[in-house]
Amino acid sequence: MNNIHSIARYSKKFSNEDLHEIIISKNLEIEAWFRKQWIKYPAPFYSSIDLRNSGYKIAPVDTNLFPAGFNNLDASMESLYISAVQHTLEKQSAELTKLLIITENHTRNKFYSKSLTTLKSFIEKAGFEVQSCMLGDESNTEAINKDLVLNNSILSYKKFIPDIVLLNNDLSSGVPNILKHTKQLILPDLHMGWTNRSKTVHFKYFTDIIYNFSRVFNVDTWLLEPLFRNCGEIDFKTKQGEDCIIYHAKKLFELIKIKYEQYNINEKPYIMIKADSGTYGMGIMQVNSIDEIVKINRKQRTKMAKTKGGKILRSVILQEGIYSNEKLSSPNNVVEPVIYAFGSNLVGGFYRVHQDKDNSQNLNSPGMTFKPIPFNDICISPDHSQSIYSDKNKFYIYGVVARLAILAAAKELYNVEI
Amino acid sequence: MNNIHSIARYSKKFSNEDLHEIIISKNLEIEAWFRKQWIKYPAPFYSSIDLRNSGYKIAPVDTNLFPAGFNNLDASMESLYISAVQHTLEKQSAELTKLLIITENHTRNKFYSKSLTTLKSFIEKAGFEVQSCMLGDESNTEAINKDLVLNNSILSYKKFIPDIVLLNNDLSSGVPNILKHTKQLILPDLHMGWTNRSKTVHFKYFTDIIYNFSRVFNVDTWLLEPLFRNCGEIDFKTKQGEDCIIYHAKKLFELIKIKYEQYNINEKPYIMIKADSGTYGMGIMQVNSIDEIVKINRKQRTKMAKTKGGKILRSVILQEGIYSNEKLSSPNNVVEPVIYAFGSNLVGGFYRVHQDKDNSQNLNSPGMTFKPIPFNDICISPDHSQSIYSDKNKFYIYGVVARLAILAAAKELYNVEI
Repeated sequence: MNNIHSIARYSKKFSNEDLHEIIISKNLEIEAWFRKQWIKYPAPFYSSIDLRNSGYKIAPVDTNLFPAGFNNLDASMESLYISAVQHTLEKQSAELTKLLIITENHTRNKFYSKSLTTLKSFIEKAGFEVQSCMLGDESNTEAINKDLVLNNSILSYKKFIPDIVLLNNDLSSGVPNILKHTKQLILPDLHMGWTNRSKTVHFKYFTDIIYNFSRVFNVDTWLLEPLFRNCGEIDFKTKQGEDCIIYHAKKLFELIKIKYEQYNINEKPYIMIKADSGTYGMGIMQVNSIDEIVKINRKQRTKMAKTKGGKILRSVILQEGIYSNEKLSSPNNVVEPVIYAFGSNLVGGFYRVHQDKDNSQNLNSPGMTFKPIPFNDICISPDHSQSIYSDKNKFYIYGVVARLAILAAAKELYNVEI
Repeated sequence: MNNIHSIARYSKKFSNEDLHEIIISKNLEIEAWFRKQWIKYPAPFYSSIDLRNSGYKIAPVDTNLFPAGFNNLDASMESLYISAVQHTLEKQSAELTKLLIITENHTRNKFYSKSLTTLKSFIEKAGFEVQSCMLGDESNTEAINKDLVLNNSILSYKKFIPDIVLLNNDLSSGVPNILKHTKQLILPDLHMGWTNRSKTVHFKYFTDIIYNFSRVFNVDTWLLEPLFRNCGEIDFKTKQGEDCIIYHAKKLFELIKIKYEQYNINEKPYIMIKADSGTYGMGIMQVNSIDEIVKINRKQRTKMAKTKGGKILRSVILQEGIYSNEKLSSPNNVVEPVIYAFGSNLVGGFYRVHQDKDNSQNLNSPGMTFKPIPFNDICISPDHSQSIYSDKNKFYIYGVVARLAILAAAKELYNVEI
């Protein structure tokens, strides 16, 4: 990964407590800590985690439990992905043989279609019989795919009776009745769809985890998490809830400023306002001052008001903006790492690259491209013979931070299941 | 693997029931079958399996539960090995953090030393603290390493108190008392050392497994196993037990001949006489006729009488010789595949290559070299778009046969543990 511009010196300039030093030197204790966590809180079937690395802090900004983009992983490590799928399914039961993937409806989108083909092939090669089908009309919760039939609470698709149903549809439009009454195991749990899930809840769990982790390993929590505030009952069109947004934005700017001063960071704080439920890079807006919030124009309001599937945005999370100070040296593009896992098994990931964005902006937007991170570099283990700021060791830290986010999702799952 | 001479046509010429066809077409059922077996019979911690592929049959000839040669695996797939170690240790307990490897005493042997360094690094990178030490003087069961201390049944090595002890010493010279009284988990079980284990017992379990497998998947058992007979109470020096060897060799030659006739195989049957306990390519002899057994000379007798650690050979297994009709096309050397696993997780392997041996001979002898088999080629999954005789699909078959041998070892383990 020589063409990834090193941010080591950048980091050194700011840090008092050094995040890299702590994580690399305590890796065995960290691995032992994770092993015990997974026993208590089993990880969801799969996930992808968007990270931002500013040099002084490395934190997740989104944890996706219905990942796409599998086609962007490094193909030469396929056997690792297959093995990770095997271990994750094996933990459910040894009796599973047939798996049905319920997909998003935009299977004609060539990127999604490629991701799905790749995911299917991982599961098939892991030794399972796999079929996939679309859920159906997203605008109507009940108008699901006519080939999906429920008989005595057993779901089947064109006579294929799966032992297990894998959701690759984030259920943004609600949980269809047919799935509510399906007897077979559904992964991830129906409650983990975006109808029920919220980023605020996820990051509350994440805060708990970082609090524990930081206490054990003696690191400032801020170095691992984006600060955030939440506003419900928002309507961007009618400006309902604007006071709430301004109130929390002020608080958040103040908190970020305090930390920037503490670490001598000479950057301008900014905030991301995001739909509290949903992803796809929709319903997301960057604000650099309170003034910008007051002046949001009609076009921006209309854009923010709608998220995936035409659903109206009702609640937002205000998240600390984290500068991405990681760049491809040539061309000089801003990148952000996306890390993938099956269960608690990391399988590598890729850099999201955007040539038209600067280091504060959301890169998950049209024009982005991808650059695989080979898993040998994002290994479960650091290399103590290399600098703590080396790429190899940086990727280990990404793996730790990504697993902390997966653990937060595991705690969400644990609490909806009981 | 283009330089591996294809034996597809060779195979086609002989087979009535086609082994390749059955295994490749029924792979999903085979994987489901294995998943259920591992629940009942957990695989030993690690193993390496020597296979022989004659084209018409593919069978294991040795199952090593204290493998060396980790340095010969394809280094680019290291993350897969690390992940396999994690899953195998994770299945024991989430509380393990410190591991002590008890090694063979020939750590000055540069090949063994390299293997040990590689094995240690896999386990360290899997997130465990690892130390290793020699067991001690092999000629004396009790003269063990003075740095190994037992205190209240807790084994420690120079103040390092492991949670788990990993044997990489095959205990050919017996089980030391200190290990008999050690409270910590020892892997593999002490009973799996060569003091207690015998090839005959292993291949009896293997026969049972092949019988079940063949019944389910409708394949002739002979295509997957070497025929064998056993003679105990042998003394090569005094010729004691020679009658027994001759009697069983006759029977074995007859049985092989029947199968060769059934499959129209135009080769000369041969037999391998092997020490029933022990490995290292010692105590092994090829015989092509009864006459050769009668005429074994003094030098051969003396050589056969001793095995590893100077132990006297007391019992032998007579095993059907399996021609290795797999060759490197350039140079035209005979090869045999060796497959590695942690638990039931295959991690690839290598070809043992010997330029001075023909297709009937044991290749595990001085002068052998190694050629890694990349795991992407020995994948858990066949490729149905390729010929059933393609390298990719051949490697899948190797993976199936190797796992059948691991399952036999798992049944051995199951029966010593209860």
